[in-house]
Amino acid sequence: MGRLRAPNISVSLDGFATGEGQSIDAPFGHAGRRLHGWFFATPTWPGHHPGEEQTLAPGAEEDDVFARRAFEGFGAEIMGAGKYGPPGWQDDPDWQGWWGEEPPFQSPVFVLTHRPRPSLTLGETTFHFLDATPEQALRQARDAAGELDVRLGGGPTTIREFLSADLVDALHLVVVPIVLGRGERIWDGQEGLEERFDLRSTTTGSGVTHLEFMRKPR
Amino acid sequence: MGRLRAPNISVSLDGFATGEGQSIDAPFGHAGRRLHGWFFATPTWPGHHPGEEQTLAPGAEEDDVFARRAFEGFGAEIMGAGKYGPPGWQDDPDWQGWWGEEPPFQSPVFVLTHRPRPSLTLGETTFHFLDATPEQALRQARDAAGELDVRLGGGPTTIREFLSADLVDALHLVVVPIVLGRGERIWDGQEGLEERFDLRSTTTGSGVTHLEFMRKPR
Repeated sequence: MGRLRAPNISVSLDGFATGEGQSIDAPFGHAGRRLHGWFFATPTWPGHHPGEEQTLAPGAEEDDVFARRAFEGFGAEIMGAGKYGPPGWQDDPDWQGWWGEEPPFQSPVFVLTHRPRPSLTLGETTFHFLDATPEQALRQARDAAGELDVRLGGGPTTIREFLSADLVDALHLVVVPIVLGRGERIWDGQEGLEERFDLRSTTTGSGVTHLEFMRKPR
Repeated sequence: MGRLRAPNISVSLDGFATGEGQSIDAPFGHAGRRLHGWFFATPTWPGHHPGEEQTLAPGAEEDDVFARRAFEGFGAEIMGAGKYGPPGWQDDPDWQGWWGEEPPFQSPVFVLTHRPRPSLTLGETTFHFLDATPEQALRQARDAAGELDVRLGGGPTTIREFLSADLVDALHLVVVPIVLGRGERIWDGQEGLEERFDLRSTTTGSGVTHLEFMRKPR
């Protein structure tokens, strides 16, 4: 059975995984692009133009080792409503996510929402909308993923719910050296998390610290 | 003129620099010794017995490079009331701090409190009690320190006050891989701190990450 892994979750020093004031123009609120700058600098980021001459910033190759893993070995994704669209997307029947006609998931994606809608296929990605507990959603995603892992894609509320239900096998946080001051906290309700996980910390030349939480054998 | 440096400030992943429920039996509340375990493992920690055979834990030598700096080049210390004693020490005229007859400071120590008392000399350390703003306290401590630096010794509230007043030249935080869940936060009110400081991050074999904030030239 595949593992449930949450990769590439960027957080500020003060533990915010997204900023305040999320909207269609500001998916991460006042954090802007600051939380994910380390990722945009890696070769793995799909936003580079083909053939673009890329001068790698310090640490980008080290960071890329981590970034790549977020795209390898997954057969399905689970995401929260807050990742699928800006606040209020449930009122817009035409909202199809942020990712255009060819979303990068290329697998079934299970979107947790209290207001489900019919499934939507865009390119090689099919979004399914579930009003379900973390356990139920994971069961469906595992069925869809077969032998492969399931990606837990965020946002922070969803990560916390799955951590609290002790369903997460691997969590990769990237601590970015900024103090956001406000937004959505990743750590709330997670007191004692370290008792259930082994942790490896790696600081790279870009200044971020990768925290790899690996669930201890049960 | 010496710098104001805050060294060896341990914080949990979720940004707590002390736990909840501080008392005379639990100076760091429910955090116990967990925030400072990395320090106790270094040769610099003064609690080792003379002649003790010490087998260094992984990373302890790397950590010691940082730990040592907390004891070098200082001519005075400023600390908050919360560091000098457990809640309510102001009501006990006999309270003389946690450190016994020979406190490790061996310099003037300026204790910020709204209820000053007469100065107290123990061994080579003299405690002065000030009801003062951060600026006023720093002026007095600098006068006492001469050419040497002034140590900002904590607790978290005091660190935050001096950061907010932009008086801190160097801040050394040690991020310990535990999630405390409750206590006193170090980051509150510090949004955008990174704009005023250069930052170097170093993860050691003990699993902690040293964050060195160095004030940019004004």
